[in-house]
Amino acid sequence: MAEATSENVVWHAGHYDRAERWDHLGLHGATIWFTGLSGSGKSTVAVEVERLLVDRKQPTYMLDGDNLRHGLNGDLGFTAEDRNENVRRVSEVARLFADAGVMALVPLVSPYRAGRERAREIHKAADVPFFEVYMDTPLDVAESRDPKGLYKLARAGKIENFTGISDPYEAPVDPDLVLEPGMGRPKAMAHMVLEMLGENGLLR
Amino acid sequence: MAEATSENVVWHAGHYDRAERWDHLGLHGATIWFTGLSGSGKSTVAVEVERLLVDRKQPTYMLDGDNLRHGLNGDLGFTAEDRNENVRRVSEVARLFADAGVMALVPLVSPYRAGRERAREIHKAADVPFFEVYMDTPLDVAESRDPKGLYKLARAGKIENFTGISDPYEAPVDPDLVLEPGMGRPKAMAHMVLEMLGENGLLR
Repeated sequence: MAEATSENVVWHAGHYDRAERWDHLGLHGATIWFTGLSGSGKSTVAVEVERLLVDRKQPTYMLDGDNLRHGLNGDLGFTAEDRNENVRRVSEVARLFADAGVMALVPLVSPYRAGRERAREIHKAADVPFFEVYMDTPLDVAESRDPKGLYKLARAGKIENFTGISDPYEAPVDPDLVLEPGMGRPKAMAHMVLEMLGENGLLR
Repeated sequence: MAEATSENVVWHAGHYDRAERWDHLGLHGATIWFTGLSGSGKSTVAVEVERLLVDRKQPTYMLDGDNLRHGLNGDLGFTAEDRNENVRRVSEVARLFADAGVMALVPLVSPYRAGRERAREIHKAADVPFFEVYMDTPLDVAESRDPKGLYKLARAGKIENFTGISDPYEAPVDPDLVLEPGMGRPKAMAHMVLEMLGENGLLR
Protein backbone atom coordinates (compact mmCIF):
# COMPACT_ATOMS: atom_id res chain seq x y z
CA MET A 1 0.00 0.00 0.00
CA ALA A 2 1.25 3.48 -0.82
CA GLU A 3 2.45 5.46 2.16
CA ALA A 4 0.00 8.25 2.94
CA THR A 5 1.90 11.48 2.48
CA SER A 6 -0.86 13.37 4.22
CA GLU A 7 -0.87 13.79 7.97
CA ASN A 8 -3.81 13.43 10.34
CA VAL A 9 -5.33 10.58 8.40
CA VAL A 10 -7.05 7.91 10.48
CA TRP A 11 -8.00 4.51 9.08
CA HIS A 12 -11.72 3.75 9.36
CA ALA A 13 -12.34 0.01 9.39
CA GLY A 14 -16.15 0.34 9.47
CA HIS A 15 -18.32 -1.96 11.53
CA TYR A 16 -18.09 -4.91 9.16
CA ASP A 17 -14.66 -6.07 8.15
CA ARG A 18 -14.15 -7.59 4.73
CA ALA A 19 -14.66 -11.20 5.84
CA GLU A 20 -17.99 -10.20 7.40
CA ARG A 21 -19.06 -8.24 4.32
CA TRP A 22 -18.12 -11.04 1.91
CA ASP A 23 -19.83 -13.55 4.17
CA HIS A 24 -23.07 -11.53 4.52
CA LEU A 25 -23.18 -10.83 0.78
CA GLY A 26 -22.12 -14.35 -0.23
CA LEU A 27 -19.42 -12.85 -2.43
CA HIS A 28 -15.71 -13.18 -3.12
CA GLY A 29 -13.70 -10.46 -4.75
CA ALA A 30 -10.54 -10.76 -6.82
CA THR A 31 -8.61 -8.85 -9.44
CA ILE A 32 -7.90 -10.49 -12.77
CA TRP A 33 -5.20 -8.55 -14.58
CA PHE A 34 -4.85 -9.19 -18.32
CA THR A 35 -1.51 -8.07 -19.74
CA GLY A 36 -0.29 -8.23 -23.34
CA LEU A 37 0.22 -6.26 -26.52
CA SER A 38 -2.45 -4.12 -28.12
CA GLY A 39 -4.52 -6.56 -30.18
CA SER A 40 -3.51 -9.55 -28.05
CA GLY A 41 -7.12 -10.20 -27.05
CA LYS A 42 -7.14 -8.86 -23.49
CA SER A 43 -10.42 -6.95 -23.73
CA THR A 44 -12.10 -9.60 -25.87
CA VAL A 45 -11.40 -12.35 -23.33
CA ALA A 46 -12.21 -10.05 -20.40
CA VAL A 47 -15.62 -9.29 -21.92
CA GLU A 48 -16.32 -13.03 -22.17
CA VAL A 49 -15.23 -13.51 -18.56
CA GLU A 50 -17.55 -10.67 -17.51
CA ARG A 51 -20.45 -12.33 -19.29
CA LEU A 52 -19.80 -15.73 -17.69
CA LEU A 53 -19.46 -14.23 -14.21
CA VAL A 54 -22.50 -11.94 -14.47
CA ASP A 55 -24.55 -14.90 -15.69
CA ARG A 56 -23.51 -16.61 -12.44
CA LYS A 57 -24.78 -13.55 -10.49
CA GLN A 58 -21.26 -12.58 -9.54
CA PRO A 59 -20.85 -8.77 -9.44
CA THR A 60 -18.10 -8.07 -11.95
CA TYR A 61 -16.67 -4.87 -13.30
CA MET A 62 -14.46 -4.09 -16.23
CA LEU A 63 -11.75 -1.59 -15.32
CA ASP A 64 -10.73 -1.07 -18.88
CA GLY A 65 -7.57 0.96 -19.29
CA ASP A 66 -9.20 2.83 -22.12
CA ASN A 67 -12.45 3.46 -20.23
CA LEU A 68 -10.59 4.78 -17.19
CA ARG A 69 -8.64 7.19 -19.33
CA HIS A 70 -11.93 8.97 -20.09
CA GLY A 71 -12.45 9.68 -16.38
CA LEU A 72 -10.17 8.97 -13.43
CA ASN A 73 -7.01 8.92 -15.53
CA GLY A 74 -8.08 11.48 -18.11
CA ASP A 75 -5.19 13.68 -16.97
CA LEU A 76 -2.55 11.10 -17.95
CA GLY A 77 -0.74 10.51 -21.24
CA PHE A 78 1.50 7.70 -22.47
CA THR A 79 4.97 8.63 -21.25
CA ALA A 80 6.65 6.04 -19.03
CA GLU A 81 5.85 8.18 -15.98
CA ASP A 82 2.19 8.60 -16.90
CA ARG A 83 1.87 4.89 -17.73
CA ASN A 84 3.25 4.06 -14.29
CA GLU A 85 0.79 6.40 -12.59
CA ASN A 86 -2.00 4.92 -14.74
CA VAL A 87 -1.08 1.40 -13.62
CA ARG A 88 -0.79 2.53 -10.00
CA ARG A 89 -4.25 4.14 -9.95
CA VAL A 90 -5.89 1.23 -11.77
CA SER A 91 -4.25 -1.15 -9.26
CA GLU A 92 -5.61 0.81 -6.32
CA VAL A 93 -9.11 0.98 -7.80
CA ALA A 94 -9.12 -2.74 -8.70
CA ARG A 95 -8.03 -3.52 -5.16
CA LEU A 96 -10.98 -1.50 -3.81
CA PHE A 97 -13.42 -3.32 -6.11
CA ALA A 98 -12.06 -6.73 -5.13
CA ASP A 99 -12.22 -5.68 -1.48
CA ALA A 100 -15.88 -4.80 -2.06
CA GLY A 101 -16.52 -8.38 -3.24
CA VAL A 102 -16.56 -7.55 -6.94
CA MET A 103 -14.54 -9.37 -9.61
CA ALA A 104 -12.38 -6.62 -11.07
CA LEU A 105 -11.32 -7.29 -14.67
CA VAL A 106 -8.35 -5.23 -15.81
CA PRO A 107 -7.38 -5.56 -19.48
CA LEU A 108 -4.37 -3.27 -19.64
CA VAL A 109 -1.23 -3.46 -21.82
CA SER A 110 0.82 -2.71 -18.67
CA PRO A 111 4.08 -3.36 -20.52
CA TYR A 112 6.51 -2.94 -17.61
CA ARG A 113 7.23 -5.78 -15.22
CA ALA A 114 7.77 -3.35 -12.34
CA GLY A 115 4.32 -1.83 -12.81
CA ARG A 116 2.61 -5.22 -12.73
CA GLU A 117 4.66 -6.27 -9.72
CA ARG A 118 3.50 -3.11 -7.98
CA ALA A 119 -0.11 -4.04 -8.80
CA ARG A 120 0.49 -7.46 -7.25
CA GLU A 121 2.11 -5.91 -4.17
CA ILE A 122 -0.79 -3.48 -3.68
CA HIS A 123 -3.16 -6.44 -3.62
CA LYS A 124 -0.91 -8.61 -1.47
CA ALA A 125 -0.55 -5.87 1.15
CA ALA A 126 -4.35 -5.72 1.40
CA ASP A 127 -4.67 -9.54 1.28
CA VAL A 128 -6.81 -9.36 -1.87
CA PRO A 129 -6.59 -12.17 -4.48
CA PHE A 130 -4.74 -11.13 -7.64
CA PHE A 131 -4.24 -13.08 -10.85
CA GLU A 132 -1.96 -12.11 -13.72
CA VAL A 133 -3.19 -13.47 -17.05
CA TYR A 134 -0.65 -13.17 -19.84
CA MET A 135 -2.12 -12.88 -23.34
CA ASP A 136 0.88 -14.37 -25.09
CA THR A 137 -0.01 -13.30 -28.62
CA PRO A 138 3.03 -12.73 -30.87
CA LEU A 139 3.55 -9.24 -32.24
CA ASP A 140 2.93 -10.30 -35.86
CA VAL A 141 -0.43 -11.83 -34.93
CA ALA A 142 -1.47 -8.80 -32.84
CA GLU A 143 -0.32 -6.46 -35.57
CA SER A 144 -2.19 -8.36 -38.28
CA ARG A 145 -5.39 -7.97 -36.20
CA ASP A 146 -4.76 -4.26 -35.52
CA PRO A 147 -8.39 -3.80 -34.30
CA LYS A 148 -7.97 -0.08 -33.65
CA GLY A 149 -5.63 0.63 -36.57
CA LEU A 150 -2.98 1.70 -34.08
CA TYR A 151 -0.09 -0.44 -35.36
CA LYS A 152 -0.50 1.17 -38.76
CA LEU A 153 -0.26 4.62 -37.17
CA ALA A 154 2.68 3.55 -35.01
CA ARG A 155 4.57 2.13 -38.03
CA ALA A 156 3.94 5.40 -39.82
CA GLY A 157 5.46 7.23 -36.87
CA LYS A 158 2.16 8.92 -36.05
CA ILE A 159 2.00 7.44 -32.52
CA GLU A 160 4.96 7.64 -30.19
CA ASN A 161 5.74 5.28 -27.31
CA PHE A 162 3.73 2.46 -28.86
CA THR A 163 4.29 -0.87 -27.10
CA GLY A 164 5.89 -3.48 -29.36
CA ILE A 165 6.92 -0.93 -31.97
CA SER A 166 8.65 2.01 -30.31
CA ASP A 167 8.33 0.96 -26.67
CA PRO A 168 9.25 -2.37 -25.02
CA TYR A 169 6.90 -5.06 -23.72
CA GLU A 170 8.37 -7.00 -20.82
CA ALA A 171 6.78 -10.45 -20.74
CA PRO A 172 5.64 -11.83 -17.37
CA VAL A 173 8.09 -14.15 -15.63
CA ASP A 174 5.62 -16.15 -13.56
CA PRO A 175 2.04 -15.35 -14.62
CA ASP A 176 -0.92 -17.18 -13.07
CA LEU A 177 -2.28 -18.12 -16.49
CA VAL A 178 -0.90 -17.94 -20.04
CA LEU A 179 -3.31 -17.72 -22.98
CA GLU A 180 -2.00 -18.22 -26.51
CA PRO A 181 -3.89 -17.83 -29.80
CA GLY A 182 -3.71 -21.59 -30.44
CA MET A 183 -5.63 -22.38 -27.25
CA GLY A 184 -9.05 -21.66 -28.66
CA ARG A 185 -11.57 -18.93 -29.16
CA PRO A 186 -12.05 -16.11 -26.61
CA LYS A 187 -14.95 -17.88 -24.94
CA ALA A 188 -12.84 -21.02 -24.39
CA MET A 189 -10.11 -18.86 -22.89
CA ALA A 190 -12.68 -17.21 -20.61
CA HIS A 191 -13.65 -20.65 -19.33
CA MET A 192 -9.98 -21.26 -18.48
CA VAL A 193 -10.03 -18.07 -16.40
CA LEU A 194 -13.13 -19.24 -14.57
CA GLU A 195 -11.52 -22.61 -13.96
CA MET A 196 -8.60 -20.79 -12.33
CA LEU A 197 -10.99 -18.83 -10.12
CA GLY A 198 -12.85 -22.02 -9.21
CA GLU A 199 -9.63 -23.78 -8.24
CA ASN A 200 -8.97 -20.89 -5.87
CA GLY A 201 -12.42 -21.13 -4.30
CA LEU A 202 -13.53 -17.77 -5.69
CA LEU A 203 -16.67 -18.70 -7.64
CA ARG A 204 -20.05 -18.38 -5.99
CA MET B 1 -17.17 13.18 -17.69
CA ALA B 2 -13.61 14.48 -17.91
CA GLU B 3 -12.32 14.94 -21.44
CA ALA B 4 -9.69 12.32 -22.20
CA THR B 5 -6.48 14.19 -22.87
CA SER B 6 -4.95 11.05 -24.32
CA GLU B 7 -5.33 10.21 -27.97
CA ASN B 8 -6.09 6.84 -29.50
CA VAL B 9 -8.43 5.85 -26.73
CA VAL B 10 -11.44 3.79 -27.76
CA TRP B 11 -14.44 3.23 -25.51
CA HIS B 12 -15.19 -0.42 -24.80
CA ALA B 13 -18.82 -0.91 -23.92
CA GLY B 14 -18.48 -4.63 -23.23
CA HIS B 15 -21.12 -7.13 -24.20
CA TYR B 16 -23.50 -6.29 -21.36
CA ASP B 17 -24.47 -2.68 -20.91
CA ARG B 18 -25.22 -1.41 -17.42
CA ALA B 19 -28.96 -2.04 -17.58
CA GLU B 20 -28.28 -5.65 -18.55
CA ARG B 21 -25.67 -6.07 -15.81
CA TRP B 22 -27.91 -4.57 -13.13
CA ASP B 23 -30.79 -6.65 -14.38
CA HIS B 24 -28.85 -9.95 -14.43
CA LEU B 25 -27.35 -9.25 -11.01
CA GLY B 26 -30.58 -7.91 -9.51
CA LEU B 27 -28.70 -4.84 -8.32
CA HIS B 28 -28.96 -1.06 -8.40
CA GLY B 29 -25.97 1.17 -7.87
CA ALA B 30 -25.88 4.71 -6.51
CA THR B 31 -23.49 7.11 -4.85
CA ILE B 32 -24.39 8.57 -1.48
CA TRP B 33 -22.16 11.54 -0.77
CA PHE B 34 -21.97 12.70 2.86
CA THR B 35 -20.64 16.23 3.26
CA GLY B 36 -20.04 18.19 6.46
CA LEU B 37 -17.45 19.34 8.96
CA SER B 38 -14.96 17.00 10.59
CA GLY B 39 -16.85 15.50 13.54
CA SER B 40 -20.26 16.11 11.94
CA GLY B 41 -21.03 12.38 11.90
CA LYS B 42 -20.49 11.56 8.21
CA SER B 43 -18.51 8.35 8.75
CA THR B 44 -20.60 7.27 11.71
CA VAL B 45 -23.84 7.48 9.73
CA ALA B 46 -22.22 5.98 6.62
CA VAL B 47 -21.08 2.96 8.64
CA GLU B 48 -24.66 2.44 9.85
CA VAL B 49 -25.93 2.75 6.27
CA GLU B 50 -23.35 0.18 5.17
CA ARG B 51 -24.52 -2.24 7.83
CA LEU B 52 -28.20 -1.84 6.91
CA LEU B 53 -27.49 -2.31 3.19
CA VAL B 54 -25.15 -5.28 3.60
CA ASP B 55 -27.73 -6.94 5.85
CA ARG B 56 -30.12 -6.58 2.89
CA LYS B 57 -27.55 -8.32 0.65
CA GLN B 58 -26.89 -5.10 -1.22
CA PRO B 59 -23.19 -4.82 -2.22
CA THR B 60 -22.00 -1.63 -0.57
CA TYR B 61 -18.61 -0.04 -0.29
CA MET B 62 -17.25 2.73 1.86
CA LEU B 63 -15.07 5.11 -0.12
CA ASP B 64 -13.79 6.86 2.92
CA GLY B 65 -11.79 9.97 2.20
CA ASP B 66 -9.30 8.95 4.84
CA ASN B 67 -9.03 5.35 3.60
CA LEU B 68 -8.46 6.47 0.02
CA ARG B 69 -5.69 8.77 1.13
CA HIS B 70 -3.72 5.68 2.18
CA GLY B 71 -3.83 4.34 -1.39
CA LEU B 72 -5.20 5.96 -4.53
CA ASN B 73 -4.86 9.49 -3.21
CA GLY B 74 -1.76 8.94 -1.09
CA ASP B 75 0.07 11.46 -3.25
CA LEU B 76 -2.28 14.32 -2.35
CA GLY B 77 -2.17 16.81 0.50
CA PHE B 78 -4.69 19.34 1.82
CA THR B 79 -4.13 22.42 -0.31
CA ALA B 80 -7.18 23.66 -2.22
CA GLU B 81 -5.73 22.16 -5.42
CA ASP B 82 -5.05 18.77 -3.84
CA ARG B 83 -8.47 18.74 -2.18
CA ASN B 84 -10.07 19.37 -5.57
CA GLU B 85 -8.10 16.53 -7.16
CA ASN B 86 -9.03 14.32 -4.19
CA VAL B 87 -12.72 15.08 -4.70
CA ARG B 88 -12.41 14.54 -8.45
CA ARG B 89 -10.79 11.11 -8.09
CA VAL B 90 -13.20 9.98 -5.38
CA SER B 91 -16.09 11.11 -7.61
CA GLU B 92 -14.80 9.09 -10.54
CA VAL B 93 -14.23 5.99 -8.41
CA ALA B 94 -17.67 6.28 -6.75
CA ARG B 95 -19.23 6.60 -10.20
CA LEU B 96 -17.48 3.38 -11.28
CA PHE B 97 -18.71 1.54 -8.17
CA ALA B 98 -22.27 2.75 -8.66
CA ASP B 99 -22.06 1.78 -12.34
CA ALA B 100 -20.98 -1.69 -11.18
CA GLY B 101 -24.20 -1.97 -9.14
CA VAL B 102 -22.60 -1.22 -5.79
CA MET B 103 -23.84 1.37 -3.29
CA ALA B 104 -20.88 3.72 -2.95
CA LEU B 105 -20.79 5.55 0.38
CA VAL B 106 -18.58 8.64 0.39
CA PRO B 107 -18.13 10.39 3.73
CA LEU B 108 -15.92 13.29 2.75
CA VAL B 109 -15.71 16.82 4.19
CA SER B 110 -15.69 18.13 0.58
CA PRO B 111 -15.99 21.73 1.78
CA TYR B 112 -16.24 23.46 -1.60
CA ARG B 113 -19.55 23.72 -3.44
CA ALA B 114 -17.81 23.57 -6.81
CA GLY B 115 -16.16 20.25 -5.94
CA ARG B 116 -19.46 18.67 -4.91
CA GLU B 117 -21.17 20.05 -8.00
CA ARG B 118 -18.45 18.46 -10.08
CA ALA B 119 -19.10 15.13 -8.33
CA ARG B 120 -22.79 15.48 -9.19
CA GLU B 121 -21.98 16.36 -12.81
CA ILE B 122 -19.65 13.35 -13.19
CA HIS B 123 -22.51 11.10 -12.09
CA LYS B 124 -25.13 12.90 -14.15
CA ALA B 125 -23.03 12.61 -17.32
CA ALA B 126 -22.87 8.84 -16.76
CA ASP B 127 -26.55 8.66 -15.75
CA VAL B 128 -25.66 7.25 -12.33
CA PRO B 129 -27.85 8.11 -9.29
CA PHE B 130 -26.17 10.57 -6.92
CA PHE B 131 -27.40 11.81 -3.54
CA GLU B 132 -25.87 14.62 -1.51
CA VAL B 133 -26.46 14.18 2.22
CA TYR B 134 -25.62 17.25 4.26
CA MET B 135 -24.55 16.56 7.84
CA ASP B 136 -25.70 19.90 9.21
CA THR B 137 -23.85 19.76 12.51
CA PRO B 138 -22.89 23.20 13.89
CA LEU B 139 -19.19 23.89 14.34
CA ASP B 140 -19.43 24.10 18.14
CA VAL B 141 -21.05 20.64 18.30
CA ALA B 142 -18.54 19.09 15.90
CA GLU B 143 -15.66 20.75 17.75
CA SER B 144 -16.92 19.55 21.12
CA ARG B 145 -16.91 15.97 19.76
CA ASP B 146 -13.46 16.33 18.17
CA PRO B 147 -13.19 12.52 17.70
CA LYS B 148 -9.70 12.68 16.20
CA GLY B 149 -8.43 15.58 18.32
CA LEU B 150 -7.97 17.61 15.13
CA TYR B 151 -9.84 20.76 16.19
CA LYS B 152 -7.54 21.04 19.18
CA LEU B 153 -4.52 20.84 16.87
CA ALA B 154 -6.07 23.27 14.40
CA ARG B 155 -6.86 25.81 17.16
CA ALA B 156 -3.25 25.47 18.32
CA GLY B 157 -2.14 26.28 14.78
CA LYS B 158 -0.60 22.83 14.34
CA ILE B 159 -2.80 21.95 11.34
CA GLU B 160 -3.18 24.34 8.44
CA ASN B 161 -6.11 24.54 6.04
CA PHE B 162 -8.50 23.00 8.55
CA THR B 163 -12.14 23.27 7.47
CA GLY B 164 -14.23 25.39 9.83
CA ILE B 165 -11.19 26.89 11.55
CA SER B 166 -8.71 28.12 8.96
CA ASP B 167 -10.52 27.06 5.79
CA PRO B 168 -14.13 27.71 4.75
CA TYR B 169 -17.01 25.22 4.58
CA GLU B 170 -19.55 26.08 1.92
CA ALA B 171 -22.90 24.61 2.94
CA PRO B 172 -24.97 22.81 0.26
CA VAL B 173 -27.66 24.89 -1.41
CA ASP B 174 -30.02 22.09 -2.42
CA PRO B 175 -28.92 18.80 -0.81
CA ASP B 176 -31.00 15.63 -1.27
CA LEU B 177 -31.15 15.08 2.49
CA VAL B 178 -30.22 17.17 5.53
CA LEU B 179 -29.33 15.46 8.81
CA GLU B 180 -29.10 17.51 12.00
CA PRO B 181 -27.96 16.35 15.45
CA GLY B 182 -31.50 16.76 16.85
CA MET B 183 -32.93 14.24 14.37
CA GLY B 184 -31.83 11.19 16.29
CA ARG B 185 -29.01 8.74 16.73
CA PRO B 186 -26.80 7.65 13.80
CA LYS B 187 -28.83 4.51 13.21
CA ALA B 188 -32.06 6.53 12.93
CA MET B 189 -30.33 8.82 10.44
CA ALA B 190 -29.17 5.77 8.46
CA HIS B 191 -32.77 4.65 8.21
CA MET B 192 -33.64 8.07 6.73
CA VAL B 193 -30.96 7.49 4.08
CA LEU B 194 -32.43 4.09 3.24
CA GLU B 195 -35.89 5.63 3.04
CA MET B 196 -34.54 8.08 0.47
CA LEU B 197 -33.05 5.21 -1.54
CA GLY B 198 -36.31 3.28 -1.33
CA GLU B 199 -38.31 6.26 -2.55
CA ASN B 200 -36.02 6.32 -5.57
CA GLY B 201 -36.52 2.62 -6.26
CA LEU B 202 -32.92 1.76 -5.43
CA LEU B 203 -33.33 -0.86 -2.70
CA ARG B 204 -33.33 -4.54 -3.61
